[in-house]
Amino acid sequence: MIYDLIVIGGGPAGYIGAERAAQAGLNTLLVEKRHLGGVCLNEGCIPSKTFLHSAKIFDYARYSQKYGVTAQNVELDHSAVIRRKNKVVKVLVSGIRTQLRNSNVNVVEGHAIISGKSSDGYTIKVNDETFTGRRLLIATGSAPVIPPIPGVKEGLASGFVLTNREILDIPQVPGSLAVVGGGIVGLEMASYFSSAGAKVTVIEMLDHIAGNIDADISRILLNNFRKKGVEFKLNSRVVEIKNGTVKYESAGKLEEINADKVLMSVGRRPVVQDIGLESICVEIEKGGIKTDEMGKTNIPEVYAAGDVNGRSMLAHTAYREAEACVNNMLGKRDIIRYNAIPSVVYTNPEVASVGETEETAREKGIEFDVVKLSMRYSGRYVAENEAGDGICKLLINKENRNVIGVHMIGSYSSEIIYGAGIMIETEMRIRDIKELVFPHPTVSEIIRESVFQFED
Amino acid sequence: MIYDLIVIGGGPAGYIGAERAAQAGLNTLLVEKRHLGGVCLNEGCIPSKTFLHSAKIFDYARYSQKYGVTAQNVELDHSAVIRRKNKVVKVLVSGIRTQLRNSNVNVVEGHAIISGKSSDGYTIKVNDETFTGRRLLIATGSAPVIPPIPGVKEGLASGFVLTNREILDIPQVPGSLAVVGGGIVGLEMASYFSSAGAKVTVIEMLDHIAGNIDADISRILLNNFRKKGVEFKLNSRVVEIKNGTVKYESAGKLEEINADKVLMSVGRRPVVQDIGLESICVEIEKGGIKTDEMGKTNIPEVYAAGDVNGRSMLAHTAYREAEACVNNMLGKRDIIRYNAIPSVVYTNPEVASVGETEETAREKGIEFDVVKLSMRYSGRYVAENEAGDGICKLLINKENRNVIGVHMIGSYSSEIIYGAGIMIETEMRIRDIKELVFPHPTVSEIIRESVFQFED
Repeated sequence: MIYDLIVIGGGPAGYIGAERAAQAGLNTLLVEKRHLGGVCLNEGCIPSKTFLHSAKIFDYARYSQKYGVTAQNVELDHSAVIRRKNKVVKVLVSGIRTQLRNSNVNVVEGHAIISGKSSDGYTIKVNDETFTGRRLLIATGSAPVIPPIPGVKEGLASGFVLTNREILDIPQVPGSLAVVGGGIVGLEMASYFSSAGAKVTVIEMLDHIAGNIDADISRILLNNFRKKGVEFKLNSRVVEIKNGTVKYESAGKLEEINADKVLMSVGRRPVVQDIGLESICVEIEKGGIKTDEMGKTNIPEVYAAGDVNGRSMLAHTAYREAEACVNNMLGKRDIIRYNAIPSVVYTNPEVASVGETEETAREKGIEFDVVKLSMRYSGRYVAENEAGDGICKLLINKENRNVIGVHMIGSYSSEIIYGAGIMIETEMRIRDIKELVFPHPTVSEIIRESVFQFED
Repeated sequence: MIYDLIVIGGGPAGYIGAERAAQAGLNTLLVEKRHLGGVCLNEGCIPSKTFLHSAKIFDYARYSQKYGVTAQNVELDHSAVIRRKNKVVKVLVSGIRTQLRNSNVNVVEGHAIISGKSSDGYTIKVNDETFTGRRLLIATGSAPVIPPIPGVKEGLASGFVLTNREILDIPQVPGSLAVVGGGIVGLEMASYFSSAGAKVTVIEMLDHIAGNIDADISRILLNNFRKKGVEFKLNSRVVEIKNGTVKYESAGKLEEINADKVLMSVGRRPVVQDIGLESICVEIEKGGIKTDEMGKTNIPEVYAAGDVNGRSMLAHTAYREAEACVNNMLGKRDIIRYNAIPSVVYTNPEVASVGETEETAREKGIEFDVVKLSMRYSGRYVAENEAGDGICKLLINKENRNVIGVHMIGSYSSEIIYGAGIMIETEMRIRDIKELVFPHPTVSEIIRESVFQFED
């Protein structure tokens, strides 16, 4: 049988792409080598959110005297958290399995390797079996970057060094944890394990945490982490890892810290090896599969979506890319816009962001006005946060008065940010937003408050 | 001195109206007889949110074993909750005072009575002083409806019967509480006092709770309340209140329950008495000041905004109405649209709603498609809610494929709903929403999931 579409990889890009294609009538095969749901569901977004939700409840129970609630002997049972995490993942993976089945997607488990092209289409080998598809959607995702630091390989082998995968299953909270890399994954795990009782130190090469987020918000987040007792070594480069210690260079000096475990979270790289891309000459650029804004690679009828293209490396971008790929396969021209993709850090407080930062706007030469407002302008925020130091920052294009960036740190930011994305996506002007009705009292009103700081 | 504008009432409509007007250069006086911030800030939205936040933390601490967190001797200190509530209110009221001062609004405390019209403008008497203003913004708000039930008046006098005002300051949690009226105020207080330990019974005339919200959501909310131990007497009409008992009629039978306190929460009425409306012949309709969609009354240069017009009786509607009034005063034509005003019930789980319900759409003869989706389609919802029974319901116009209503019950609904309001306000079609990127994993994604249940 010749498939209309073969999807390689069952993560967010793969399973959504397969579902949408099959629902639209394409005879679709999906090949997954590990777990349906991919890294996001099995070793990333979802497991970390179960961890962080438990930590939040734990922190509430411990520190809620200021809200009139007292409790004794408050304890976090880490093994119960892991059991619950596994249950949640199981429920969601089986949900995806059911949705794929209901959409009539054929699912094969195994490692797919593209083996070439015949007159019928592209050929794929999985466990010695060969499948043929008229189209391909490559959605092989990403893997953690393992830097060539002496001792890392041995540490991974011995279990002293962990990646995002292993840390979600360590049976006990380590006494001390060194986190190498202060990006989203590193910070979320630092947040959980610090609440859970580990002495956490984050070692970061840059002079700030959380990558490309707004600089003010990065500072506020850092302060909140420090108040929790997390230590930071900024401007620091790890040079060697040996059982029990992490050596790093900082301002020309060699320093070291002791740690029971090390989390390696310095980034992720697209998975482009060992999948036979060379057999059909798919072009690679900056380590990822090169795609255009329709999700097309350089090879006809071969598409790529999700982390493997190295563009945004977020599950929600993957969804959208996969959907655009399928639409384009079906002849419905669909362009992926990357200007309104939100990003979230699920620490406590939460950070959420969409659109331009001051830095990116300046780089692009956009003339903008900016306003920075304390979250304490929101009545609900004051009602729910003692001594909260959250902010909302809003950027508008100076000329046409469109919103071009919204950045928040504070409660509910994760759930509020999509609406700011709509404002950017639909090119709303300041005066349009002033006429919107935000429910009172909500933290979302901080956007309204910010908007009223600008003239029309 | 003749003011450009006199604002009567310092609640949400009054203080926002005064601020905006003064910022735009109008010489503005605001008269408030009780507390700046009005009912919303002093006796409504904000105080209740501090109560409910403490209750949520308390419930988390008590029932979080399923999330791996255990605690002993968990207690809610009601008097600490009240102290904190008073502190929060004080902070926010002083914030409003500062903003009014910074905007150069003159504030006078006292009961304003409109006394007539001179050639210079309208005259207002406050504490024997007379002020004159070229324009008026009437924002006197609303007061609780006190139904003419035998015993209510005496109960209010003795402290057995309470309104939203008194219940927020009772020093002790009553052993039992009868809530007359299962609307938003009644349900929010039932939620808090039930968590705080009171035996709560809600008596409601209708066959459902929470007024005009979606029928499915009303049922789910009822189930959640019942699981908490709150009792409901639906289709029941209170006929007499006597110290310690509430008598009601249900299915033709007379019943009674005992209660230590009774909350009277059967609705609110616009405050149109004793403010001198008759002196300038302002027209009243259905108990409220009649306004057009620009906020104008029947009298030139006399505007009304907020609860006093009896239209929507929500603080955020009041904000918008007041702003529209001021824009129209300034000659910037501004029409208030009432089709995308969200409403929220801050119970646990939260309920939020915007646009048409199935009922209102049918009444208006709109042909619509509807989808109802379990919140368990959201990964974050599953990660954070054991056995959650939330739903999202989405209505679209069958013909033009615009979203016309969104209704949710489940965590974060209050903070998500404004974005759904934007979709309605900007007349987004199903296919536009399909191209939006929602951050993953969030509960807000449930809107995206719902949208993909429809064809374009």
